Amino acid sequence: MIKGLSTAGLGQVKNLEELIILASENGFGSVDTSGQDLRNFVEEKGLDNAKAFLKEHKVAIGSIGLPLEWRQSEEQFKEGLSTLLDDAKIAAEFGCTSCCTYVLPATDYNAAHFMALATKRLRLCAQILKEYGLNLGLEFVGPHHLRTAWKNPFIWEMKDTLDWIDAIGEPNVGLLLDSYHWYTISGTIDDLFALRPEQITHVHLNDAKDVPVEEVLDNDRLYPGEGVIDLAGFLKALNQIGYKGSVTQEILTKEPLTESAKLLAEKSGKAYKKVYAVAELE
Amino acid sequence: MIKGLSTAGLGQVKNLEELIILASENGFGSVDTSGQDLRNFVEEKGLDNAKAFLKEHKVAIGSIGLPLEWRQSEEQFKEGLSTLLDDAKIAAEFGCTSCCTYVLPATDYNAAHFMALATKRLRLCAQILKEYGLNLGLEFVGPHHLRTAWKNPFIWEMKDTLDWIDAIGEPNVGLLLDSYHWYTISGTIDDLFALRPEQITHVHLNDAKDVPVEEVLDNDRLYPGEGVIDLAGFLKALNQIGYKGSVTQEILTKEPLTESAKLLAEKSGKAYKKVYAVAELE
Amino acid sequence: MIKGLSTAGLGQVKNLEELIILASENGFGSVDTSGQDLRNFVEEKGLDNAKAFLKEHKVAIGSIGLPLEWRQSEEQFKEGLSTLLDDAKIAAEFGCTSCCTYVLPATDYNAAHFMALATKRLRLCAQILKEYGLNLGLEFVGPHHLRTAWKNPFIWEMKDTLDWIDAIGEPNVGLLLDSYHWYTISGTIDDLFALRPEQITHVHLNDAKDVPVEEVLDNDRLYPGEGVIDLAGFLKALNQIGYKGSVTQEILTKEPLTESAKLLAEKSGKAYKKVYAVAELE
Amino acid sequence: MIKGLSTAGLGQVKNLEELIILASENGFGSVDTSGQDLRNFVEEKGLDNAKAFLKEHKVAIGSIGLPLEWRQSEEQFKEGLSTLLDDAKIAAEFGCTSCCTYVLPATDYNAAHFMALATKRLRLCAQILKEYGLNLGLEFVGPHHLRTAWKNPFIWEMKDTLDWIDAIGEPNVGLLLDSYHWYTISGTIDDLFALRPEQITHVHLNDAKDVPVEEVLDNDRLYPGEGVIDLAGFLKALNQIGYKGSVTQEILTKEPLTESAKLLAEKSGKAYKKVYAVAELE
Repeated sequence: MIKGLSTAGLGQVKNLEELIILASENGFGSVDTSGQDLRNFVEEKGLDNAKAFLKEHKVAIGSIGLPLEWRQSEEQFKEGLSTLLDDAKIAAEFGCTSCCTYVLPATDYNAAHFMALATKRLRLCAQILKEYGLNLGLEFVGPHHLRTAWKNPFIWEMKDTLDWIDAIGEPNVGLLLDSYHWYTISGTIDDLFALRPEQITHVHLNDAKDVPVEEVLDNDRLYPGEGVIDLAGFLKALNQIGYKGSVTQEILTKEPLTESAKLLAEKSGKAYKKVYAVAELE
Repeated sequence: MIKGLSTAGLGQVKNLEELIILASENGFGSVDTSGQDLRNFVEEKGLDNAKAFLKEHKVAIGSIGLPLEWRQSEEQFKEGLSTLLDDAKIAAEFGCTSCCTYVLPATDYNAAHFMALATKRLRLCAQILKEYGLNLGLEFVGPHHLRTAWKNPFIWEMKDTLDWIDAIGEPNVGLLLDSYHWYTISGTIDDLFALRPEQITHVHLNDAKDVPVEEVLDNDRLYPGEGVIDLAGFLKALNQIGYKGSVTQEILTKEPLTESAKLLAEKSGKAYKKVYAVAELE
Repeated sequence: MIKGLSTAGLGQVKNLEELIILASENGFGSVDTSGQDLRNFVEEKGLDNAKAFLKEHKVAIGSIGLPLEWRQSEEQFKEGLSTLLDDAKIAAEFGCTSCCTYVLPATDYNAAHFMALATKRLRLCAQILKEYGLNLGLEFVGPHHLRTAWKNPFIWEMKDTLDWIDAIGEPNVGLLLDSYHWYTISGTIDDLFALRPEQITHVHLNDAKDVPVEEVLDNDRLYPGEGVIDLAGFLKALNQIGYKGSVTQEILTKEPLTESAKLLAEKSGKAYKKVYAVAELE
Repeated sequence: MIKGLSTAGLGQVKNLEELIILASENGFGSVDTSGQDLRNFVEEKGLDNAKAFLKEHKVAIGSIGLPLEWRQSEEQFKEGLSTLLDDAKIAAEFGCTSCCTYVLPATDYNAAHFMALATKRLRLCAQILKEYGLNLGLEFVGPHHLRTAWKNPFIWEMKDTLDWIDAIGEPNVGLLLDSYHWYTISGTIDDLFALRPEQITHVHLNDAKDVPVEEVLDNDRLYPGEGVIDLAGFLKALNQIGYKGSVTQEILTKEPLTESAKLLAEKSGKAYKKVYAVAELE
């Protein structure tokens, strides 16, 4: 399983190039980014140099974010399709096979109707991504406070998300499995053992404070090993079922982090080393 | 558009044979039934005689009901699949191209999760039906009292049902459009003109009492022409957009009807003649 | 059924604006064009004026051509997807609901493998078009000489094309039915009566010379009424099954036509009047 | 990877019970069978005892054969759907997740049309199997003599089969990868490394005689290790990419084998031990 870095948890990172360097210097093998940042990176360096830069630094592109708005109007959704095409194309150039989006656990829309619309829209996204060899990862979002942050409950359980993936019905749709959300839905190690590796498109690794699980806030995350989540068990289980993709840090915080990206990346690298060691993965 | 008869509104009808005779005697060109009743009919008469009987009486099979339980557990759903196969097969033998189910406007399940499950299940039903040349009709159910009869709102609007049909994504899924439900969602004639005929799998024709639309009860229906629904406008619009299928009576009542099926079928026949005449369809 | 005009059979037509004027002056209600020509038209006139121009001239956009290459490599196919998005968008702006491509009856590829690739590719096209309310029309191509123009036979029969449409499996895929190809596959009026209108995305109207059907050449077409095809029967049948879309002329000739577009459009208009009159459609 | 046994290569095996015993006694962890044999097994023993019997013998059901005819007429295909439902149900009872069929490399039908029909039919099979948690495995068939055994070439390459699986478009369709066919298409170890484990539904392990690859006959197979195929490389590659399913022997021979099933199963067990050892898998 590849250690992955994103800008979330690194404070201010200038650009993708800096993120790649920080990843490389601290033992990470992949970075998460966006299609736009990839295009910027290519514009600055040229495509061949950009690829060479990643290769030299032994860093892969772990995942890009789904660049369009599938949660609002049809018009907004359609507006984003050409960007999706562009992002899929640039991601495929870099051998990236994962494109992810999160699923809020509540909605102001009629939940059933929104589920129908979202199913239709994400199916089209999956079909376009498939043409470029990318998978679509859906991240269930567990924190209790978000379940009531909008009028109507949507879905947040892993098994419900898997049912939704079945309803979408495309071969290249899977979970973005975040240890933080898995913790907030009181997920178990056995739940992980019940997964097949191809059901997991991407993984996030974060830790949670020692407060009652109902009070865990989405934007109050800790670095791996700083909190109470059984990350060693989490990693062991994923490894054992055969997951081989990236496991990416995504530390969302209430306030912007003020330490330098360099320091925070070092902190992240050490945190990863520690939990991987406890999980006997290195 | 073919005038259609079902047992709903005829009191006690012995069997499919009697329903066919009643339809034939009162100007109806089709009957709605079930796969089970079709099989009983064939068992009694033999397949060739059964077909000949319909031909002699100039009555077609308008639609059969979807025979399985898609609203409960996966187990129950799977239990019904072999009956679905059998029903599709016998319906196809009789040239029937429509199989319908109703969609309750509320559910005790998490509405979004149930929508995902229902999408997956009805897609499989549609795929099996397609193999036999049948379409799947989804009937939105509008009466206000049912919208709160279970914990969570599901869908009841025609446009939301069309969005759901898009989400199911199979070519052979359309609306079962009931004048009664169209009335209870305050549907307009323009809503009908916006439909393409292939979006309509089947039509029900019923009338409603002169009470505020919010108080209209699902099981308190009137025969066509007895109530306040603009059935002439409804029929004209459907005819004009090119719908050519059955328009079937389905009078649900609080108490069982006590008059003879013969009398009630005559009443139905006259009711249909009247509204078709007002709609200038004959 | 709307009389439709394309540039094929009009010699030199300057641009879409001229085509619209020629259509309007000669009794046509729609024109076939391309996404690129629509964009050029909008660039010159502005979107609102372009729409107004069509409205004033009582001419609709009948169909656009599928703008991408689905018959060669994966790379070429993917190259065209962003143009497809753009074309779908501009076509939808003009209320156009049809996008068509032709299917050659032979291929230099392994026919089975190419069918698998083409199925996958056209499904994605259909899915993208669906998002914009467009249907995808597949034109089977019948002339005998083309069936052996490449190494391996592909498909050219109407029923095989319908089977393929089933295999593609999307709700918005249908036939582009050209009277010329229907004639060259020895299609019958009964074959047309067996169609449902939603199976027909678009129609072409052309006539054939009085030579043995095996010798009819694809690029040797006559104006409607000049040849031996039973176009009255063709039109009557389509009208009777409820087809309401465009019926567009597409006269392919060996040599470029040298008469003025004005004269040729008049000729076309008269030809259409004549065959519509024989078909008792006006 | 689980060593799997089928009756092919064992001469006369009385029933599934005997096959399970033979598997168990000779180091195999799974058996391939049919839905019908599973039902017979359950009829004799009862469901609970049947399951207990497998558990005691530490043998799983590796795969069942697709029980219907998808290569002939629509009627024959539809005839088989209820058996498919029954087989999927009984297979799911035993935790079996694989159902396989072979794909002949040539056909007497028009190859493109047959590909369209087969795509449609196998999609429906996949959808039904998915409901029961089963995957559909498609076995490409490589021997050169079969490529011309019918009028028109179909497909036999692994990559073409993967393209076909994309065209079918369901998440639960993959390869049945037979070392024998991989050898006859001159497949490489790198071809195997290019696979993701979820693309492989099932594996067959057989060996080939030392004759020119063009002359290898489909029904002239050897036990693993007796021939010239690099089975160690084959197994190593599959293990390395993460395939964890069954690897089942299927020795097809010109003449019925005359030795006892007991002796042949011992021979098979030793053959497997040998090639697994060379592959450093045990």
